[in-house]
Amino acid sequence: MTEVAAVTPSEPSESSDRHRERMARKKAIQDERIAQATQEKGLIIVHTGAGKGKTTAALGLIFRALGHGLRVGVVQFTKGARTSGEAAFARELPGRVDFFAMGEGFTWETQDRDRDRAAAERAWSKACELMADPSYHLLVFDEINIVLRDETLPVAAVLAALRSKPDQLHVVLTGRSAHPDIVELADLVTEMKLVKHPFRAGIKAQRGIEF
Amino acid sequence: MTEVAAVTPSEPSESSDRHRERMARKKAIQDERIAQATQEKGLIIVHTGAGKGKTTAALGLIFRALGHGLRVGVVQFTKGARTSGEAAFARELPGRVDFFAMGEGFTWETQDRDRDRAAAERAWSKACELMADPSYHLLVFDEINIVLRDETLPVAAVLAALRSKPDQLHVVLTGRSAHPDIVELADLVTEMKLVKHPFRAGIKAQRGIEF
Repeated sequence: MTEVAAVTPSEPSESSDRHRERMARKKAIQDERIAQATQEKGLIIVHTGAGKGKTTAALGLIFRALGHGLRVGVVQFTKGARTSGEAAFARELPGRVDFFAMGEGFTWETQDRDRDRAAAERAWSKACELMADPSYHLLVFDEINIVLRDETLPVAAVLAALRSKPDQLHVVLTGRSAHPDIVELADLVTEMKLVKHPFRAGIKAQRGIEF
Repeated sequence: MTEVAAVTPSEPSESSDRHRERMARKKAIQDERIAQATQEKGLIIVHTGAGKGKTTAALGLIFRALGHGLRVGVVQFTKGARTSGEAAFARELPGRVDFFAMGEGFTWETQDRDRDRAAAERAWSKACELMADPSYHLLVFDEINIVLRDETLPVAAVLAALRSKPDQLHVVLTGRSAHPDIVELADLVTEMKLVKHPFRAGIKAQRGIEF
């Protein structure tokens, strides 16, 4: 569990008793919040923003889910079959993580809108197929926000499918510029904000970090 | 690789030719940026902010690194030996991911500053041991930002160790309220910003998602 309660930084100078009292109050608030949160349900999770870590945090959810014996499916909307670390590792986990790289590359790679649309439709139909398969516990639709933003895929179809997804299924949607209606529907939305990027400082994309 | 160039949303109404030209210009900018980034080095990466996904994105980097055959070490500064999905999955990968849960829980759990300090020192000495072992390619110091913020661990020691780390080693530091000197030293800093959290809506922490 990560830290949820608002945090007052510790004062190194405070007495042990004061520290203990303050932390006891904080624990009570935290326990109360956990006690009130009782609903079990599959979450719709969005990772958006211009920063790094959107796809990566989805891969982290997969890492965690595998430890609980959950089955995972990934549909990549813009990435093609190029070798990536994540796809290579997924191949070591047959029947546990299924990777479908359905993209043709970014829109500035293809430079062809009809081809982009056809690829997005194929990816979306794979996504629907996985949502209909009750053996999956967690699905990641990687970079789907991009094809929705570009209207390469219509948002209405995605909203309707998410609204009628199996109740316990978790779905993660990644990509910058998440559509406001997707954000509205989601249970958990994180914006990854770029603070500093090594690309800008002449450092190249590093194997195992960027891909 | 994720999308780095600033994005002008596509206009669905634009002609194919205009789209093709615009994307070709964008690709040229992108290619130029990649060409200029030539330096190979181990990165210092910081995941901070109040949102979800800081630890999770670090787990995602591990997922990706494993696909490239890299060896990974994780030191958890606040989390104890409690069962988590990530620790369970790491146990399936002996010699590839080594997990050290060195914490005693959050400071509002222990309510004892001396015990917090002793735990942080033990975790930090494990971290130093791993940095000195050339067989590791990627190290994650999970929630280290928290113990630095609380001054449970002195920042000067961490800065000195990071400055003299092996050149090709990647180090990821997670936790909210990253210290400004750590941010200054880092190559890549992402702030995870909370947009929407299900805890607040009475939904409990979900197995495989939150832990």
